[in-house]
Amino acid sequence: MKLKNNTVYDCSVIDVSKIHNNAGNITVIENGHNIPFNVNRIYYLYDVPSGEARGGHAHYELEQFIVAASGSFDVILDDGLNRKRVSLNRPNLALHVVPGLWRELDNFSSGSICMVLASHAYDENDYIRDYSKFLKYRN
Amino acid sequence: MKLKNNTVYDCSVIDVSKIHNNAGNITVIENGHNIPFNVNRIYYLYDVPSGEARGGHAHYELEQFIVAASGSFDVILDDGLNRKRVSLNRPNLALHVVPGLWRELDNFSSGSICMVLASHAYDENDYIRDYSKFLKYRN
Repeated sequence: MKLKNNTVYDCSVIDVSKIHNNAGNITVIENGHNIPFNVNRIYYLYDVPSGEARGGHAHYELEQFIVAASGSFDVILDDGLNRKRVSLNRPNLALHVVPGLWRELDNFSSGSICMVLASHAYDENDYIRDYSKFLKYRN
Repeated sequence: MKLKNNTVYDCSVIDVSKIHNNAGNITVIENGHNIPFNVNRIYYLYDVPSGEARGGHAHYELEQFIVAASGSFDVILDDGLNRKRVSLNRPNLALHVVPGLWRELDNFSSGSICMVLASHAYDENDYIRDYSKFLKYRN
């Protein structure tokens, strides 16, 4: 499988909007409407100790929206040449991670919730878990 | 459109599993795997003042998974004959709400996050927002 040659500059933070209400705010993400792929898998990280980091990996095909549904954390994106750190701390902001990039998560606040909307079902063959292999495949 | 005659006893709390890890826990919900419908719309409520309630409605067709991704709140289910109160306070527990039921949310804790995975895109025609009409259509 060929690794896509997207760069960190192909990833952007998208304001997916917020509906204000006295009884709380709502953010809606709908297939075919305000997300550039169809969501087939949702996962969320919680009970992450503050300051914690999560090991990196890359995907051949998977696209993701990453949202700080609560609290804050950073996403480090790496295309083999450039690294970009994105701080997420608003439930209405989604980081669009395109395929082919190495990503790590760190700087979690206490009680943070990292929600990830992913384009495909789980497939171990779509993962690159070794950074040196990632660099080799990118070049 | 005919309102489905499901009862509150058709709604159950499903343990969608939790992957333990020293760097935090993960819960995964995947179309075709551990959810009885395909997710087409994701929304989440946040900044809900503690003790707040959210007004009720029913759906003709929409199915939902409701999860307390953080904090806690209650879901009140009503089929016109029976009422059932379900307290949600664990990120790995999803309340499956079948179509045809009136539902309200209340008893939000500070900082709670109510995540809803829904089977269909938004459609105002799928809503019943008047409880007396709901009762009439159920009977």
